[in-house]
Amino acid sequence: MKNFTHKIPTRFVFGRGAEKQVGAEIKALGGTRVLIHYGGGSAVRSGLIDRVETSIREAGLYSVTLGGAQPNPRDTKVYEGIALIRREHIDFVLAVGGGSAIDSAKAMAHGSQYDGDFWDFFCGKAKPEASLPIGCVLTMSAAGSESSNSCVITQESTKTKRGLGSEFNRPVLAIMNPELAMTVPPYQIACGATDILAHIMERYFTIDTDVDLTDRLCEAAMAAVIRAARIAVKNPSDYDAQAQLMWGSTIAHNNTLSVGRESDFGSHQIEHELSAKYDVPHGAGLAVVFPAWMRFHMPNHVMRFAQYAVRVWGCQMNFEHPEETAMLGIEAHEAFLREIGMPTTLKELGAKTEDIPFLAAHTKKNNPAGFTGMCYPMTVADIEAMYRIADR
Amino acid sequence: MKNFTHKIPTRFVFGRGAEKQVGAEIKALGGTRVLIHYGGGSAVRSGLIDRVETSIREAGLYSVTLGGAQPNPRDTKVYEGIALIRREHIDFVLAVGGGSAIDSAKAMAHGSQYDGDFWDFFCGKAKPEASLPIGCVLTMSAAGSESSNSCVITQESTKTKRGLGSEFNRPVLAIMNPELAMTVPPYQIACGATDILAHIMERYFTIDTDVDLTDRLCEAAMAAVIRAARIAVKNPSDYDAQAQLMWGSTIAHNNTLSVGRESDFGSHQIEHELSAKYDVPHGAGLAVVFPAWMRFHMPNHVMRFAQYAVRVWGCQMNFEHPEETAMLGIEAHEAFLREIGMPTTLKELGAKTEDIPFLAAHTKKNNPAGFTGMCYPMTVADIEAMYRIADR
Repeated sequence: MKNFTHKIPTRFVFGRGAEKQVGAEIKALGGTRVLIHYGGGSAVRSGLIDRVETSIREAGLYSVTLGGAQPNPRDTKVYEGIALIRREHIDFVLAVGGGSAIDSAKAMAHGSQYDGDFWDFFCGKAKPEASLPIGCVLTMSAAGSESSNSCVITQESTKTKRGLGSEFNRPVLAIMNPELAMTVPPYQIACGATDILAHIMERYFTIDTDVDLTDRLCEAAMAAVIRAARIAVKNPSDYDAQAQLMWGSTIAHNNTLSVGRESDFGSHQIEHELSAKYDVPHGAGLAVVFPAWMRFHMPNHVMRFAQYAVRVWGCQMNFEHPEETAMLGIEAHEAFLREIGMPTTLKELGAKTEDIPFLAAHTKKNNPAGFTGMCYPMTVADIEAMYRIADR
Repeated sequence: MKNFTHKIPTRFVFGRGAEKQVGAEIKALGGTRVLIHYGGGSAVRSGLIDRVETSIREAGLYSVTLGGAQPNPRDTKVYEGIALIRREHIDFVLAVGGGSAIDSAKAMAHGSQYDGDFWDFFCGKAKPEASLPIGCVLTMSAAGSESSNSCVITQESTKTKRGLGSEFNRPVLAIMNPELAMTVPPYQIACGATDILAHIMERYFTIDTDVDLTDRLCEAAMAAVIRAARIAVKNPSDYDAQAQLMWGSTIAHNNTLSVGRESDFGSHQIEHELSAKYDVPHGAGLAVVFPAWMRFHMPNHVMRFAQYAVRVWGCQMNFEHPEETAMLGIEAHEAFLREIGMPTTLKELGAKTEDIPFLAAHTKKNNPAGFTGMCYPMTVADIEAMYRIADR
């Protein structure tokens, strides 16, 4: 088990009607002038933005709104938010939405406290040294951005999608009402569940296999998320299933499930190129990448994949041919993704065979050497080979 | 799934040599005058107190020491600490030890900021409204006090052992080096593992059975703790086993494993009377109480106990007679406790059959009506019947 430090500064307010407490919660945290950042018109039409504004007003605080956060959030919107924060002397940034709105809000909060171009943080030129407190009213279970140290932004002009890891990324407040996720379309629920599972798998397929406790916590979370996803995709109004997906999204990506060992975000890095190029949902891209990534790496990590198959998918262990068990787990994973309506081939994403060399080269070009795969490292040729597995 | 709020303010610094960072960490948290509170002479003899004092001095901070925290920590020591804190203008209380030192330090921190008698907090007369920041250098995996909201103190004159739940109880800093637990005697390691398991089981045996995710996380943690305990009791210098017990002790009792539902601390309440009356280790008392508690409640919660048997102990499910499976799990649990050297009968604790009515009545008398068992409530007659199961 590796040495680690761990702290989650987020205060979680979870449950039915939780959004009505947002004003009082922000006030308790010292916020006085709030930027409410959200995505499309649905948050307005559903009355959610109105409820949030009312709660903030009733707490005696000032707020302004900024809509238009897009899936795969853009740098252009971040610049707009930074200008607004400065103009309005905002001291608390509240995202209302899913990972896109939250990531967009995070970048705004950091950029507003930085003299240079905020993109410096995403291309590795600078690190955030100050930010504004960030909160969210979560409406979708997926990215885990509600308490993660991650933030992913796409530079619109170059279609470059880049992540920033920083403790400044962790929100101080996460308002989580699973009822708000009930209006998310089943396809998006499935994309979210795929993203949650990917976050856990990236912590599970590691070279540090000496942390039995973390292994088992990961397996537990994966089993629960798989079960809840099956229910929620069929019946989005099932509160308990939505609640477990929502809390699952949080613990999947805030280090609760990775203390004491390295994670491998190679597959996420690879996927960013897919969703940047074809503008497909992140979860759909991951559904294509992950089964191929698993098939590519399994031969070198047979017992780990067999453990995954046995403990998460309930496969019987074949002690003579563990690779058979390992493959059963991968097949079960892929069958589950198809069951909940996810694509699992490049074709289904609209990607062509001839794009593969570009996708592979771009992944490597845009990441520092060795970054693609902290635990299971991959060369450009490896990534190409992996993509060809997904090209069916 | 029930509504909840959740926040863990503790910063965890975990790993080999972590105690050398204690000074810098306290400084970063704003502490300047530190009370170092510890238990017996072993922390001094091992050089740990010296290393802690050196680290604090090198960070430019002032410290004083107060030893003598006892197992089942006493109010008398707390009064001594409160006086010292006031005299020395202490602004940070650091416990070096296990749950006893930490709980003692917590009570001192609260009491020092209160005009009345600190015992008011423990007999329900008052609630803490201020405290000093609390940190710890953990030397034993057991109570989970390093980030829990719990604190248990014994009033020496009346042998009354009482707990206080308060967010002020959560340390802001937990320095956790599993190597420090390697000198704990195997019997105490086993007591600690029993306490950790009890904390998880009190979250698992609940009436809120609709939170599959929390169920599975509990099962995962129990399985890992059982495995690590077996290893650590045989070989206390196994780092990974000690590391997993130590992190297990933390997550077992800081609400990571109980979000969204009620816990049932009835068995802990019952045990407090045992360790207060016979001055036995808390873990040893729990080892006697828990198998009896399970046998008492199983007939009314057969499927939950069967789930426990199947998922934690790997028992085969008997679908025709699930109560048989449920009992197999209880027997496996008890066999494990004996394997690691724990007592499982009242006799082994030195308790006599004729003490049972007193123990049962005292549990109830010292707890508000209905407190003994939030989920599986117990009358005095029930507690007596349970004790008789343990009287073999």
